Amino acid sequence: MADEVVLLDTWVSMFGMRVRVALAEKGVNYDYKEQDLKNKSPLLLEMNPIHKKIPVLIHNGRPICESSIIVQYIDEVWNDQSPFMPSDPYDRAQARFWVDFSDKKIYETWKKMWLSEGEEHEAGKKELISIFKQLEDALGDKIFYGGDSFGFLDIGLIPFSCWFYTFETYGNFKMEAECPKLMAWVKRCFQRKAVSNTLPDDKKVYDFVLAMEKILKNK
Amino acid sequence: MADEVVLLDTWVSMFGMRVRVALAEKGVNYDYKEQDLKNKSPLLLEMNPIHKKIPVLIHNGRPICESSIIVQYIDEVWNDQSPFMPSDPYDRAQARFWVDFSDKKIYETWKKMWLSEGEEHEAGKKELISIFKQLEDALGDKIFYGGDSFGFLDIGLIPFSCWFYTFETYGNFKMEAECPKLMAWVKRCFQRKAVSNTLPDDKKVYDFVLAMEKILKNK
Repeated sequence: MADEVVLLDTWVSMFGMRVRVALAEKGVNYDYKEQDLKNKSPLLLEMNPIHKKIPVLIHNGRPICESSIIVQYIDEVWNDQSPFMPSDPYDRAQARFWVDFSDKKIYETWKKMWLSEGEEHEAGKKELISIFKQLEDALGDKIFYGGDSFGFLDIGLIPFSCWFYTFETYGNFKMEAECPKLMAWVKRCFQRKAVSNTLPDDKKVYDFVLAMEKILKNK
Repeated sequence: MADEVVLLDTWVSMFGMRVRVALAEKGVNYDYKEQDLKNKSPLLLEMNPIHKKIPVLIHNGRPICESSIIVQYIDEVWNDQSPFMPSDPYDRAQARFWVDFSDKKIYETWKKMWLSEGEEHEAGKKELISIFKQLEDALGDKIFYGGDSFGFLDIGLIPFSCWFYTFETYGNFKMEAECPKLMAWVKRCFQRKAVSNTLPDDKKVYDFVLAMEKILKNK
């Protein structure tokens, strides 16, 4: 039986992008269904009744939810080539730790900075930069987070890079000045077609965020 | 080389208990170091500089943090018997999903109910019960969440059971009446020495929470 793979997602989601990069890395064909989160589809509500969130991967009719869990699932099912997970248990634990760290910290901190002003805005900006510095430290002098190969943590982090322009513009800082080694890693990742063909243009992300801001401020 | 295993933990932590149950299931000997979270030890700060939280497993000098990541690490390192993870990738994804769900929901919802009054308290109580009903549904008619064998999700959830008396007393409800199948699962888990010898008495947990409440209210 041929695999039937469907992805419920929204184009601008960093978490959805993880899944798209993972599927592209493994060369898996899939049916992409863009979701309207203001008007959730019956399919999304049926496939993720607990969180009602994207991304959801539907593999032969069965849903898998939560981006980092989906990426591990993809790695375990399409396991004949280029494993995402490091072979050593300690390295695997470290990769999971930093993906979990990025899940807990980046988006929440960005939201704190986004629509705030004054001291709160400055505190959010400082925290966001310090998160990326911690991630840069975790990279060290490696080519990829997975060492010589592009792996689970690389997939977990690279989607945030197409939001960097937005973070920089709202926060008035430059990632290149703050985290040059992390930015060199981003460039290396973009040499991979699975990344460069998948991630949206950073200006398009910024325009989306500007439009969202207008909607929120008019509420 | 013999394994040197150290656990930094506090006795009342549901998350620390996961690691203790996992180590007991695998028959791993370890050095337990109770931590004072009001006065964090230099060892804890060195071993978990990012979150500064327990539990931390130190295996041959190297730290692993975040309870669900530690339990997976234990399963992968001491892999000669009784695997925690289901053999099928879809079942693994489901087990990870529900552990992640419990991480995000139970403790936060309990905190919302704990020190609140009136409507907020009632909303928290309702939500907490509904979380356990969702977990009961996920169990279905299986013996354990891992099917016939006690697995990753069983380890992830069983520590919450020694907090049930506290949840019930503050919320004025009975788990037995709300979730009888879940309570039958708890009893089955307690037939395992790794659980019954590890989890603290539920009245001791309640006394601890009462004492915490007094401290917080006198602040």
